Parts: sequence; C-alpha cells; structure tokens
Amino acid sequence: MSSPLNALVNHQCRLAARPVGLPKASDWQFTEQAVAEPGEGGVLVRTLALSLDPAMRGWMNEGKSYIPPVAIGEVMRAGGIGVVVASKNPAFAVGDTVTGGPGVQEYWAVPGDQIQRSGMARIDLRAGTVTQWLNVLGMPGMTGYFGLMDVGQPQPGETVVVSGAAGAVGQTVGQIAKLKGCRVVGIAGGPAKCEWVVEELGFDACIDYKAPAPGGVTKWDAVREGLKQHCPKGVDIYFDNVGGDILDAVLARINRKARIIICGAISQYNATAAVQGPKNYLSLLVNRARMEGIVVFDYADRYHLAISEMAGYLKDGRMKSKEDVVTGGIAAFPATLPKLFNGENFGKLVLQVAPA
Amino acid sequence: MSSPLNALVNHQCRLAARPVGLPKASDWQFTEQAVAEPGEGGVLVRTLALSLDPAMRGWMNEGKSYIPPVAIGEVMRAGGIGVVVASKNPAFAVGDTVTGGPGVQEYWAVPGDQIQRSGMARIDLRAGTVTQWLNVLGMPGMTGYFGLMDVGQPQPGETVVVSGAAGAVGQTVGQIAKLKGCRVVGIAGGPAKCEWVVEELGFDACIDYKAPAPGGVTKWDAVREGLKQHCPKGVDIYFDNVGGDILDAVLARINRKARIIICGAISQYNATAAVQGPKNYLSLLVNRARMEGIVVFDYADRYHLAISEMAGYLKDGRMKSKEDVVTGGIAAFPATLPKLFNGENFGKLVLQVAPA
Repeated sequence: MSSPLNALVNHQCRLAARPVGLPKASDWQFTEQAVAEPGEGGVLVRTLALSLDPAMRGWMNEGKSYIPPVAIGEVMRAGGIGVVVASKNPAFAVGDTVTGGPGVQEYWAVPGDQIQRSGMARIDLRAGTVTQWLNVLGMPGMTGYFGLMDVGQPQPGETVVVSGAAGAVGQTVGQIAKLKGCRVVGIAGGPAKCEWVVEELGFDACIDYKAPAPGGVTKWDAVREGLKQHCPKGVDIYFDNVGGDILDAVLARINRKARIIICGAISQYNATAAVQGPKNYLSLLVNRARMEGIVVFDYADRYHLAISEMAGYLKDGRMKSKEDVVTGGIAAFPATLPKLFNGENFGKLVLQVAPA
Repeated sequence: MSSPLNALVNHQCRLAARPVGLPKASDWQFTEQAVAEPGEGGVLVRTLALSLDPAMRGWMNEGKSYIPPVAIGEVMRAGGIGVVVASKNPAFAVGDTVTGGPGVQEYWAVPGDQIQRSGMARIDLRAGTVTQWLNVLGMPGMTGYFGLMDVGQPQPGETVVVSGAAGAVGQTVGQIAKLKGCRVVGIAGGPAKCEWVVEELGFDACIDYKAPAPGGVTKWDAVREGLKQHCPKGVDIYFDNVGGDILDAVLARINRKARIIICGAISQYNATAAVQGPKNYLSLLVNRARMEGIVVFDYADRYHLAISEMAGYLKDGRMKSKEDVVTGGIAAFPATLPKLFNGENFGKLVLQVAPA
C-alpha cells in the first residue's frame, strides 16, 4: 500500500547527554525518520505547537522523580498539540485537534495499544486557541488552578503571593486568586512583566526581583521590602515556582496557618551545587504553617471541570492568557528552552512547529 | 499582719545576656526575693519540679516567634509543677498540686488578676506522678500527641519515623503511633537510648545517628542506611524534633502524600551560622507531600482529652514514661540545660526544685 505519508520526514530532537547546569547545544541530537501509516487502532498526529516548561529540566536528570527521566537517545518528552493526519482508530478522525505528549518531533505516531496511556485527547478550539490550550487551558493552567484551589484553599480577603507571576502557571494562579476575592501580589523579573501583571491581569501589586532596593545590599532586599510594603497583613498563601532566596523571603512574612504550595524551583533546576534548602523553614513551626508539593497529573480526572470554568473566564474577558510563541520549528528547540531559566520569556513559552 | 511566709526566700535564675550558641554560666544571674502573702485572689506556689525543654533556647533569642522572648533581667520562663502554699483564691486550696509556668524560681506568686492568663491548673496525682505530669501528661506529651494525631493523621500499617526518639516528645509520639497500629522507627543517639526505645517502648527499630555506618563517609550515612533498612516501604509520617541532616535524610525516603511534622530543630537551635534549610525539600513536590509546623498551645482546649487517654495507657501499662530527673534545685539550672542539646539527657529532662 502506498500513501502520500511515505513522502514525509519526521524531524526529531533527542536527548544526547545529561546536561550539567543549563542545557547546551551538545546535549541534543537531531534525527530524521520516515513517517508511516498507522497500524490497526493507531493514530498519526502532525505536531502544531509544543509546550516548553521548566519541569523539562527535571526530566533530563537521572534519578527517581514523579515520572522516569528521558533516556539518552530518546526523543525529548514534551506536551503539545497537533492535528490528526491519519487514523485507524474510531475515536480520532483526520482533522481532529488533539493534545497530549508528542515529544520534540514533527510527527507523533501512537500505536493502537498505546492510545490510552498516551493521554491523547481531542480538544475544542472554540474554548481557546492552540496556544491557550497549552497555557491556561493546558498543564500550566491546571497546575495553577488545582495547586491554588486544592492545596491553597484561598479565602476571600486573604493575601496570595505568586512567584514567576508572568509565567504560565503564575498568570493563572494570580488571576484565579483575584477572581476568588484575594489580594494578589506577584513576583517577576523586570518592569515589563511587573507592569503587565498589574495593568493587564489586575494583580494588586508586583515585586520586581531584579530591581535594586533603595539602600539594599543584595537584590533580595528588593523582594523583602516589596513584601513588607505590598503585604501589610502578611502572606496567607504563597505559590512558589522559583525556590531559593525568594522562598526564604516569603517564609519570613507568612501568617498563622499559611499554605505554601511547592510547584517548582526554577532558581534551582540548573544548579550544579546542592539545592539551596529554605533556611527560614522554621517559620512553618512558629506559624503552624504548611508547605505542600503538587503534581498536576493527580488531578487528571477533574481537568475538565477546571477547563470549563477557565474557558468561561476567557470568553467573558475576566481572564487573559499570554503566550510567548517562538517560531523556527524543532530546530529552534535547543536555543529556546534556556529562555525559561534566564527569565527571558514573557508568558507561556510555546514552540510553534507548524502553522495551525 | 505577720506570717511564716515572710521568713522564706525565693531563689531565682534570671536571663542576664542573650546567649550566642550554647548558653553558658555568664548568661544567667541569680537573685533572691522575699516571699510575701498573696493579695486578694492571688496564689503562692512552691515549685516542686521544672520542665527543661529545647524550646527554651528559642525563648532566649530576640525576635518574633510564637511567644515573646524572655527579657534580659527577667526570671527565665519554664513550665513546672508546684504545690499551693498560700491562697486567697477560691479555686485553689493550700496543698493543691498545680501545673503552669512558674519560671526558674522557688516560689511562684500569681496576683489575682493574672490567675487566668497564668494557665495555672490543678492536676490529679492519681493520673500520674509529678514527673509524668511534666512528660507524657504535660507539654511534651501534648505536643507529641496532637502533632502526630492531628497533623500526621496516622493510619494503621503506615511507617512513622521519629527523631529525638528517647526524648520527651519522641517517646510519646512513638508509643502512640504503635498503639495506633503503625510501624515505628526511632532515631536517637547512642546504643543505650536505641535499645531502650526498642526493648522498653516497643518501637520496631531505632537508628543510632551517632554510630558510624559500615563503609560510610559521614555519620549521616548511618541514618541513610538505617532508614533504607528499617523503612522498606518508605516513610509515611516523619515527626521531626531535630532538623538538619537527619531531616534531609528522611526527606529522601518519604512516600507519596507523606506528612512531616515540624516540631523542632534541636540540631539548629544553638547554631551561630544560618539555619540549615532542608536541601531535599523538593521531595515534597515529587511526592505531593506536606511539611507542617505545630505549636502545642493551639490544642489547649483538647489537652484534657489527650491526658485522659494517655493516663489510661499509663495505668494499664501500655505506655511508659521515662524522666531524667536532676536534683540540685535552681542553682543547678545553668549546668543542666545544655544536656538537652549535647544529647546527654535520656528521657524527659526535669529539674527537681523541692521534694514532692
């Protein structure tokens, strides 16, 4: 049997070496594979866009985590969205837009017996655009929503602080917290992000962790001063995406029964020395407070509820979604990923692989 | 009006300086005061025994905490038990045994308008001895009980690890966890404590953090090895009294949805450098686990329930209570307190001030 698919080439980006510190060009390897017709029950998807997430850095490391590491030589794991170009599965038709984990490659071929565990699912582009489906309606949005609502349990009038405020998770957390009646203070790097978070997303304030504090000795003085100024009643919920010195600064200002959601630690992911533990963790004791980790996959059976709530907010304009879309396809992946760690990206970082 | 009380002298130990590191003799000052008849509504108590607790070290430091620091020149704060020797308050009769916070002095005079907030309360010596009332029936016991039960929420079959296992809080935690059907692994210093915890208290195992690990490079290798060996199914609850490297070693072995109760950090209380934050705190994220602080005072309205449960266990022999009673009275306080921090004490440390 012949097919026009046979003429297509799948460009792939594979993990070539375990990075030390920030991933560099030589940690990646590009390969090409012929594209083939799917077998019985299988589906072939052309990748439209990939989600670039800080968690990817953890997947590149050896060792026990919430999912196994990407093996050396394996196509780099990535969430993304694509369009079905061939299907021998009744659940998926050619032309369907689907979300799932295609990896950093142009075509995602899923055999029939792996459809279920691949997590492939159709999405409705009337609820949001492709890039919104990778942002507030996707994993980052789900992480922010369930981390804030389930672990944080915000009450109206409470003060919520979120780091990485202009990032994919942070923008969801802050906007949901505002919608739930909280005072929201973001922490982000640079005046552009801070201004956007306040002016566009409606946060009550945003602390620029890169700004030198007046009379401050270290750059963290700006964060400490900002917290003091913008959280006059202390901090009830801290949604932490960054770890390090910012986590310590917030720990010093938490209220009784505060909840700290540990979602990530961007500041530590590329550390070549030991991770910096929160020196102020005994503030948890003094304040009878709680620090708790969240992994989004635990909420998979409730994603649809959060998506429907947030799609409603997007539709009626109560929620915004900002994506930083990089073009250039698979080849641009190695140079784009580091933007997540040097604070360069602004909004959810998306790699466009093919036009939608 | 004359009274035999006038002939009595109250020997007191006051905080003379804020200690740097381990408190030393020059941080204390001894004073004498005349004893006086109580005024209207007041009570005079002769101190029988004082509770020496790691938390005392925190009370000596300047700065915000769950209670204000002891002021320079003030009688050192201490919980204890005494006997009423004079009373102008209908709630207390001469001869009553009472618990409360007498401080490090031989007589505790409470004016009528301060009885309520002094926390003075009669105790029943049929439920336990004076020293048991400072141990499993006192603050350490309440801390262990509510920390384990309320924050930890142990389920039968779960693995509970407790550090400072032979200490006042640790012995309560471990014994309650056994009674609730858990596997219990202690961490303590030296073979005598470890043997006692297993043989007398019925813990399933106890790790000697002072023992060199076979082939180990640092002393923490013994803890890591011990946890691996004695917690084959991982750790569901860790009750932390010590902080530092032991906290990190346990974090590396926690299960999904583990609960870490932060009760104290003996290893850090006398640190002159910055507190050592838990480098492995991201294990909370990977394991969707929770680290939460506990302050016993929050449970004051339920003390009576825990006391009655534990008095029952003491009576029928299902629970033991070990105290390390030091004689020598108030004068012995400065030399006795450091025993808490060098691992010298064995069981709840009590300073006997007068024979019961």
